Parts: sequence; structure tokens; C-alpha cells
Amino acid sequence: MTKKYRNGEIWEFEREMSGRTGGGGGGGGVGGVILGIDGGTTSTICVCVPLLPLQQSLHLPDPLPLLARVEAGCSNHNSVGETAARETLEQVMAEALSRSGSDRSAVQAICLSVSGVNHPTDQQRILNWLRDMFPSHVKLYVRNDAAAALASGTMGRLSGCVLIAGTGSIAFGFTDDGREARAAGAGPILGDWGSGYGISAQALTAIIRAHDGRGPQTKLTNSILQTLGLSSADELIGWTYADSSWARIAALVPAVVSCAESGDEVANNILQDAVKELALSVNAVVQRLGLSGSDGKGSFPLVMVGGVIEGNKGWGIAQEVINCISKDYPGVVPIWPKVEPAIGAALLAWNFLKDSHQE
Amino acid sequence: MTKKYRNGEIWEFEREMSGRTGGGGGGGGVGGVILGIDGGTTSTICVCVPLLPLQQSLHLPDPLPLLARVEAGCSNHNSVGETAARETLEQVMAEALSRSGSDRSAVQAICLSVSGVNHPTDQQRILNWLRDMFPSHVKLYVRNDAAAALASGTMGRLSGCVLIAGTGSIAFGFTDDGREARAAGAGPILGDWGSGYGISAQALTAIIRAHDGRGPQTKLTNSILQTLGLSSADELIGWTYADSSWARIAALVPAVVSCAESGDEVANNILQDAVKELALSVNAVVQRLGLSGSDGKGSFPLVMVGGVIEGNKGWGIAQEVINCISKDYPGVVPIWPKVEPAIGAALLAWNFLKDSHQE
Repeated sequence: MTKKYRNGEIWEFEREMSGRTGGGGGGGGVGGVILGIDGGTTSTICVCVPLLPLQQSLHLPDPLPLLARVEAGCSNHNSVGETAARETLEQVMAEALSRSGSDRSAVQAICLSVSGVNHPTDQQRILNWLRDMFPSHVKLYVRNDAAAALASGTMGRLSGCVLIAGTGSIAFGFTDDGREARAAGAGPILGDWGSGYGISAQALTAIIRAHDGRGPQTKLTNSILQTLGLSSADELIGWTYADSSWARIAALVPAVVSCAESGDEVANNILQDAVKELALSVNAVVQRLGLSGSDGKGSFPLVMVGGVIEGNKGWGIAQEVINCISKDYPGVVPIWPKVEPAIGAALLAWNFLKDSHQE
Repeated sequence: MTKKYRNGEIWEFEREMSGRTGGGGGGGGVGGVILGIDGGTTSTICVCVPLLPLQQSLHLPDPLPLLARVEAGCSNHNSVGETAARETLEQVMAEALSRSGSDRSAVQAICLSVSGVNHPTDQQRILNWLRDMFPSHVKLYVRNDAAAALASGTMGRLSGCVLIAGTGSIAFGFTDDGREARAAGAGPILGDWGSGYGISAQALTAIIRAHDGRGPQTKLTNSILQTLGLSSADELIGWTYADSSWARIAALVPAVVSCAESGDEVANNILQDAVKELALSVNAVVQRLGLSGSDGKGSFPLVMVGGVIEGNKGWGIAQEVINCISKDYPGVVPIWPKVEPAIGAALLAWNFLKDSHQE
């Protein structure tokens, strides 16, 4: 077997390990392994799990045994550039294998589910890069980050819809026959109003409108000015000009939820609008892919992830979104994943591997 | 009289002129002059007009005699920093005086109406700087850029409301007794939806929504993709990420107006919403200042300027805004200025000077 040392430093541990165990193909101290990678704009997580007998696939152990879990920074090539993104991905994979007492020759399959992969060309570029780094028997799968998020709720089945509502928002759907569709996820300029950024920007706007007489007074004013340490609504203009990063603005969602919970009508309306936007993006995907069958009543899984959905159970954004979707698609089956997306990616790799053996 | 040569190069012409005319205080070849400066984020314009006998103020010649007009770049200190902003302002004033065959000793009054002046501290800082540059008899007035825009329509009277709708939008009102109020003008993050940026961002959002199934089909898709040389709505995401400058996005307004004129319902609704937003910002100012009197039926001038209002007379944004305001304030008197804001600034300086003589 050819080992390719593309990056001496990163893969150095393999030579040391090879020396210790007497060398050869077997892959260090453990049997075959699978890598699942969830590469996002905020962080990148790689898990290494043991390859279980393929017959076990219907009854996976719960929790899945984990050999290693490694976390690093951004691996979205749109944000940090291709070189930095690849270095991050290569490092988390090497580190996960090293910590597992394993090496590249032991890897059976990799699923790299990474944000910023939106076109087949993105996918092919990353596949070529991975292909060059791993032995030829390794099965490689590259998807966008929505795939891992969906799989974390469906235990590795790439079928159904996932709604991600964090700083940004996107709905992504996959069918059993390989079709896929997305809605929203176009960023703040292009109106992702259901996202954490969208909710917070609407709240800031409501404060300005109350201040200059265009809108009703709201508890958001005191709550958010206090959160930001500002003394007047005027100062919000300078605050947004100083740094308009989406995450900084999206961090205000908890204040909006608190105001809505305490009965503020303006905050409540902002959350209601966000709920409608999120439901609409799911409905658009379900409609386009026909996920609910020809009569619109078939059941389909809807995996829900992201800070806006997970972190704010008081007001109940997630439940409101489900209620809203149910009016059009009563067969929606909401799923709150018990595992993280990187595990979802590992499960996808496992299922792809199994399918490739059955073919 | 003390001449202060703060910047040898910029004011060099005064020494040469002084030599030619035999020197002294009289101010070169002409009598007293007034400087009006409209300092904006896109450009800075300085006009030099002759001082007319003060009794003439009720019957100003039309057009106002112009000794010089000089144009330069940005003088908003928030955009380019204080040093660059001041250099631009100093240069346009020197150049206008030089071209008028005049110098600083001939100046009777200056009105500097510049964007980015939002607090009394901004105003005082610029006043101190001007004070240090001009002889002590010169009357100095510093206001934000809305003042010159209003005065360009009211022939120098700082009373009434001005609506500026270009890349951004703002409503600004002034009363005879010196009160003032503003609405909107807080930038795109804080929801200036009536601005050119707001209209265009809504249009781009509508294209994405039509594309992913969340919204109705619209002629905006073909029209704007063609304008931008893109082949698919997906590419809009990359286009906005590549450069999200407001002016680049606001430049799409004519395409939105064309689509509305050709009967596109989506484009029409976007313009209707923008009209409501613009009218609301004017109404908020009129309400807070009581510009329409105690019964709300008094007349007040509304000066309307900016690319969104001036450049799109086909669909009639300006007329729709007036119609909308009239429902609440039937005394609104729309004014489309015949002169540019820099002339408005000169007229303000003229009126301030006259008032100071009467005091």
C-alpha cells in the first residue's frame, strides 16, 4: 500500500506508529475505522468511530462507540479560503486518527459534510483532494453541512428535511432517489428573516422605529440597550456600523425571546414572523421534492437544529414552526437529534459504505 | 487682519493675489462673498456667491449669481476619517475662493452642511476648526447635510421637512424656533426599507424566493439577472457576498421600477412598501415637531431629493409618497428643488448672516 505523506508534519504520527507496531497495512492498534466530519463556519468537528460488522447496520449500538473526537475552527472555504480550510480539515482528520491509535490505512470510509459546498464542482474539488491523501480503497463522500445535520436526526438516512436556524437559516431536503432541494440560506442581504440574524436585526429596527416615532414603544429598547451597554437608541447606529458581523447581531436572540415571554407585543410579532419564514422555507422544500407524497399527507422526518430552535424553548419557536408546517403538511415528524452532526456524518459514511458493498 | 496660513500649499494663491492687487484686507478682486458647502459621502460641492445687499433678501435674483463652483470627493468623517474629510473641505473652499478671484478676508459667512454631523459635539469640533482658519468676523454655521437639502427647496429657510431617498433614506424636520427631528437614516441593518438599497435588497430577496419556491414568479428575475450578467438566481448569493456595498445594490432601483411599470405584481408591491416606509418617516417627523399645526391640517413644505425620488418618475414614487402623506397631513406642500444643496447652504449662510445683523 502506498502511503502519501503530503504534509510531513501533520501525518508524522503515522511513521512513528508504524515503527512501534512493526509497520504494515493493518492500521495501528485498532481495526477499520470511519471518519465523520462536520465542517462549519464556526467550527469543524471530526469523529472517528470503529467499523462495525455491516450486518449490524440496522441495530447500531446506542450510543455509537467513539474512538476520538477533535474540534477545530472554520473550514468553510468561502470564509477562510481554500488553503486554510483544507489545512483545518487535514489536521482534524490526522488528529482524530492519531488519538484513535489508528492511521490512514485503517480508514474504510469518510464522510466530509462541510458548509460552502453548494455546487458539484465544489464537491469534486474536495473529493480529488481527499482522493490524493488517502489509500485508494477508502470510500469518500463529500456533502454540504446540511447532510450531516439531517443524518444526525435520521441515524444516517439521507431522506427527509432538515431545518437549520442558527445565525443563518436554511431548509434542506433529500429524497431516497437522490434528489435534493434547498430554500433560504442566502444570507442577510437576501432576506433570511427566520435566522438569528434576521430576528435580531428586526428587533434593532423596532427599537429605532420606536425611538424616532415610526413604531410602537417596546420592551426591546431597555432590554437590548442594557445588554449592549448603550445609553440611547441613537447609539445603535454607531454600534451596527462599527461591526456588522452576523453572529454579533444574532447573539441578541435571547433578549428578543425574553421580551416576547414577558408579553411584549413587538417582540412577539418578530418571533411570529420568524416562525412563518422558517415554516415557509421547509414547506417550499417539501413541496418541491414531494416529500409528503402525492396527497400531501404522507409522513416525513423534519430534523431541527441550530441555536434559534434549540436554545429558546421558553417561547417555543420550534413548536410554533411545527404547528405552522402541520397546517399544510400534517405528516411532518419533528426530530431533535440526540447526536451531533459529526456523528451524523459518520453514520452517512457507514450507510454509503454498506450500500457500496450491496451493489 | 491676521491671516493664518494653516496649510501653505492650499492657501498659497492668497499670497500671490495679495501681491498682484497690492495686498490688504479687501479680498482680492470682488466684494464680500459667501461660501455654501454641501458635504456628502459621495461628493462635496462648494459654491461661492457674492454678498448682495441685505435688503435684497426677500427678492433674491433667480438664478443666484455664482462666482465659482468646485466639486470634490467624500467629506463624511465617518467614512474617510477626520483628516481626509477636513483636507477635502479646506481644498474646495480655497479653490472656490481662488476661482472667484477672492480670498478668506472677503468671506462674510460660511455654511458647511455636511453628512456625519449628528451630535452637537461633531458640530462644535468642525466649528472650532473653521474658526481657526478664517478671520474672526466671518460668520460660521455648521449643520448636517439635510439642512442644505431642505434649504435648496425653501430658498434658505430652515423650516419644514426634507425627505432624502437615495442609496439611503432619511426624513429630517426643522422648526422656526430651532427644534429638529429625524426619522430613519439608520442604515440597511436597521431597516431603511424605503431607500434605494432597501428597494433593491427586497427585489433580490424576491428573486431568491421565487427561485426556491417560497414566493411567486416575477419579472425581476430575468431583468436583474440580465442587468448583472448572471445566468441563475443561485449566483446572486455569490454576487452579494462578493461586495455588499450599499450603492452597488441600490443601483438596481431602475430595474425594479421598470418591472413595476410593466405590470409585475411583486415589483409593484416592493415599491408600494417603499412608499409607505418613506411616508411613515416623514409623518413621524411632522408629528413629533407639530409641523402641521395643532389640528394637523396646517401647511408645511416637504422638500424631496435623492435618486429614488428624482430618477424614477415613470412609476411615480414621489407622487405616491405625497398621496400617502396627504391622507394624514393634507397640508403637505411638496417641493422639488430647482437648485442644488450647495446653493441651499449658501442661502442658509445668507439668512443666518441677515438674522445676525438684525439681532
